[in-house]
Amino acid sequence: MSQPEYQSISPSDFFYRNREIAGFSNPSRATYTAVRELIENSLDACEARIVPPDIFLRISEVGDQKDTETKIYILRVEDNGTGLPAEHIPRAFAQVFYGSKYELKQARGTFGLGGTMAVLYGQITTHKPVQVTSSIGGEIHEFVMNIDIQNNSANVLKHNVKANPTKWQGTAVELQMDGDYSRIMYKLIEYLKQTAMVVPYADITYIDPRGRLYKFERGTLKMPPLPESVLPHPHGVDVETFKRLIASKKAKDMKQFMMDNFQGVGTITAERFLKLAKINPNMSPKKLTPEDLVRIVRSTKEYGDFKRPIATCLSPIGEELLETGITKELSLTEEDYIKVVTRKPSTYLGYPFIVEAAVSTGRTIRKTHGSGITLYRFANRIPLLFDEGSGVIWKAANKNINWKTYSVDSDTPLVIVVHVCSIKIPYKSVGKEFMADQPEVEKEVTNAIREAARGVRGYIRRRSRIQRERRRLNIFAQFLPKIAEFSAKLAGYDEPPDVEPLLEAVSATLPEVEENIEEVSRIVESSE
Amino acid sequence: MSQPEYQSISPSDFFYRNREIAGFSNPSRATYTAVRELIENSLDACEARIVPPDIFLRISEVGDQKDTETKIYILRVEDNGTGLPAEHIPRAFAQVFYGSKYELKQARGTFGLGGTMAVLYGQITTHKPVQVTSSIGGEIHEFVMNIDIQNNSANVLKHNVKANPTKWQGTAVELQMDGDYSRIMYKLIEYLKQTAMVVPYADITYIDPRGRLYKFERGTLKMPPLPESVLPHPHGVDVETFKRLIASKKAKDMKQFMMDNFQGVGTITAERFLKLAKINPNMSPKKLTPEDLVRIVRSTKEYGDFKRPIATCLSPIGEELLETGITKELSLTEEDYIKVVTRKPSTYLGYPFIVEAAVSTGRTIRKTHGSGITLYRFANRIPLLFDEGSGVIWKAANKNINWKTYSVDSDTPLVIVVHVCSIKIPYKSVGKEFMADQPEVEKEVTNAIREAARGVRGYIRRRSRIQRERRRLNIFAQFLPKIAEFSAKLAGYDEPPDVEPLLEAVSATLPEVEENIEEVSRIVESSE
Repeated sequence: MSQPEYQSISPSDFFYRNREIAGFSNPSRATYTAVRELIENSLDACEARIVPPDIFLRISEVGDQKDTETKIYILRVEDNGTGLPAEHIPRAFAQVFYGSKYELKQARGTFGLGGTMAVLYGQITTHKPVQVTSSIGGEIHEFVMNIDIQNNSANVLKHNVKANPTKWQGTAVELQMDGDYSRIMYKLIEYLKQTAMVVPYADITYIDPRGRLYKFERGTLKMPPLPESVLPHPHGVDVETFKRLIASKKAKDMKQFMMDNFQGVGTITAERFLKLAKINPNMSPKKLTPEDLVRIVRSTKEYGDFKRPIATCLSPIGEELLETGITKELSLTEEDYIKVVTRKPSTYLGYPFIVEAAVSTGRTIRKTHGSGITLYRFANRIPLLFDEGSGVIWKAANKNINWKTYSVDSDTPLVIVVHVCSIKIPYKSVGKEFMADQPEVEKEVTNAIREAARGVRGYIRRRSRIQRERRRLNIFAQFLPKIAEFSAKLAGYDEPPDVEPLLEAVSATLPEVEENIEEVSRIVESSE
Repeated sequence: MSQPEYQSISPSDFFYRNREIAGFSNPSRATYTAVRELIENSLDACEARIVPPDIFLRISEVGDQKDTETKIYILRVEDNGTGLPAEHIPRAFAQVFYGSKYELKQARGTFGLGGTMAVLYGQITTHKPVQVTSSIGGEIHEFVMNIDIQNNSANVLKHNVKANPTKWQGTAVELQMDGDYSRIMYKLIEYLKQTAMVVPYADITYIDPRGRLYKFERGTLKMPPLPESVLPHPHGVDVETFKRLIASKKAKDMKQFMMDNFQGVGTITAERFLKLAKINPNMSPKKLTPEDLVRIVRSTKEYGDFKRPIATCLSPIGEELLETGITKELSLTEEDYIKVVTRKPSTYLGYPFIVEAAVSTGRTIRKTHGSGITLYRFANRIPLLFDEGSGVIWKAANKNINWKTYSVDSDTPLVIVVHVCSIKIPYKSVGKEFMADQPEVEKEVTNAIREAARGVRGYIRRRSRIQRERRRLNIFAQFLPKIAEFSAKLAGYDEPPDVEPLLEAVSATLPEVEENIEEVSRIVESSE
């Protein structure tokens, strides 16, 4: 027997050793994850600045390489976002667990990890530093740096300051990394397309390693309202959070403390709650014993009269914008069915969340997607492209809903879009690919899809009635001239009568029929 | 627009905020994960000491609680392992990313995280410190401590040193945490049972919150050989590892450096490899340029003549021990079919791994498991109980194998056990519940199951022939006396002849038949 060796490792070192849990498992997947993380940082930065994002992505091969599957690529992402203050740039890109995503509001990033992981992966595969150029409106700062992995710190190799006559604001990141583009090409373009779908106010330009240009143009300049930072909701609080608040905030007594530091707690709620928790409202927070603390936290789960969590920390896309994005990226026409629903805020474990869903069917969907259900999944405006079957959205769409009641069978082409936004998405892994099945989230997702699908039955019936009508008219159009000719001969006329007015008369019923059907389906909808 | 606030958070803080990714998503799951992490540390410690593990687990409720679903539980785990040197105890249990699991050899733990996460979860839900008692054979050290989460450091509240007259060696951990036992009871007992299956040399005692005693007794005192630390295989190395080796190791030239620091590299391999990488073998490692470094690492992927990775860093259970464990925990009898296979070492991305598989069917399996496939999945002797459908083992057993060729239909009861051991299990999440589908691993798992299933067809045919034979004999036994009686009457005898010798004569064919069938199936097997 022998004693093992003990050692401490830095967060960088941890993720260097276990990069697959952050989505960097192999060259093709790493290419995808690196692009995703950088683009998401860019989108967050543009939204924070409240400007419609202009995102530029270029992936190019380093010259003179053998023709192997894995190659060295240069990845460049530019945005017109807030830019980063110079003093934060080194740590934001070269230190794990350093970032701006730790506030209580909705953001794409949540782990403060993504950008740094892309830099780290580039470094361990190519040994090349990252180049970050950024400006918050003043001078332009250009950093060339790498990560001291063992110490989790930035190693700045160059820092240039340049004049900024055009007042450019934004960030550009360029790094080299081992990648495998051919294997991930399809997913990458799909990722950009789906991003364009839920961020319809963004312009995304992409030049791929073969020099092809992909352009996803914005469909609107409107942006959803910015999420706001909020105080924590008492229901979601734990002992550690409570302790930190007590240590960092001043309050003359417990009643004041509850009112100052938690959302939706007024005089009456504070008093009633403290009574349930058996805490004297006049007591100083600093004098709470460990037992008091545990009892308070436990009581937050039992107290039933807290207000629902405030949803201003969330930023749903909204029905109008989401419809714009989907219509644009799926090239829907007026003949297709689309219904978008933004549900009211709900909560799980004290965290507010909102579910949005869209259901679309019709001829365009059949042409582009074929029969059956195609699922587009989003969380905080991030497309989720992997591990579909493991996630809660798949379960809701495929298991919880009886599609027969919507006249949907296996032949019906159906696109379902689901967007969950929350200050805390219950991801199951750092790779952010699917959500754990929290019962409240599952229920809301199911209801959202149901609500968006409500008009599908009416639409499908109407479509098949119209098609029947069309077939009938086709038959008229084919035979009426023959009959006219035949009748003319029988009657001894030289010329057959003109059938056009007759055909028109029959056709004229079509729009009317359609309107009638629409009315019927409206009645059906409203009585549901 | 406004600039967001930037901050750095500690690893403890990161996992405090994102505890669901380490398996602590809710009270019931947290109960499961905490038990698992502590028991796995205990088993690792016993195996490191080379003693058959005696594990004691107790979960009890803290007195005087309301009857809610979530309650405070006291969790206690004791082992007879190596024990921890006193100076390492605080950090091993109260600092994230501190541990002994960072060597290149097979171990249950890989993230250096599990034990500390259990302590952290207990602390944030109950505000109670953890108590760790340990001895490496000398004095007994007792620590009471908690975690300074914001600084990721241990906060020792008490440290007692006691005499150790009985020379006790081992570790006992006791902590309090919010849990939900009723929801996780079944999974927890299943976890212990499956652990007993792959660690058949362990004695596990469990006292549950209702005072019930569960005892999983060892079936053998034999233990598999210990894994050994190995040098890295050149194929799996990246630029960062290479840089660290150059910085920390002395070598007069590159040839020596390659031979000293990588497994399986002798004079000839070193020379040939360096020629491919265009590196002068006489050059000092300290003089490598960044470009040289990248070229060397790239060449390791291209050089085809490295030896296969050494497998002494692995510790498969072995066919004998695994059969003992499965037979014991599934109460198999001699009439059931069981075949255990330990495959030869393979590699993925330069990491060696070994797959073991067992297939069992028969009357006992039908009684306990019913029809269809039941899967037991293990990675480095850890039972994997969640997310079965997402993992590579499920795919291998359910998608890759055509069970009809084994005469297995949907009614056949079938238990499949798969154990993958590696110095790096390709987990997809820190929660360690399923493996990413590395193609090499998938192929080996599929082949292992196929190999273990090879005798199933012969067994199933033999069983059905025996059953047919039994039915035939039953018919004889029923009708022969009647025929004898009838014949006696016809012949005018008073007494019918004794049919027993006749029946025995017919029965006597049964063992023979069985032997013949066995021979046939042996011939079939060997010709496969």
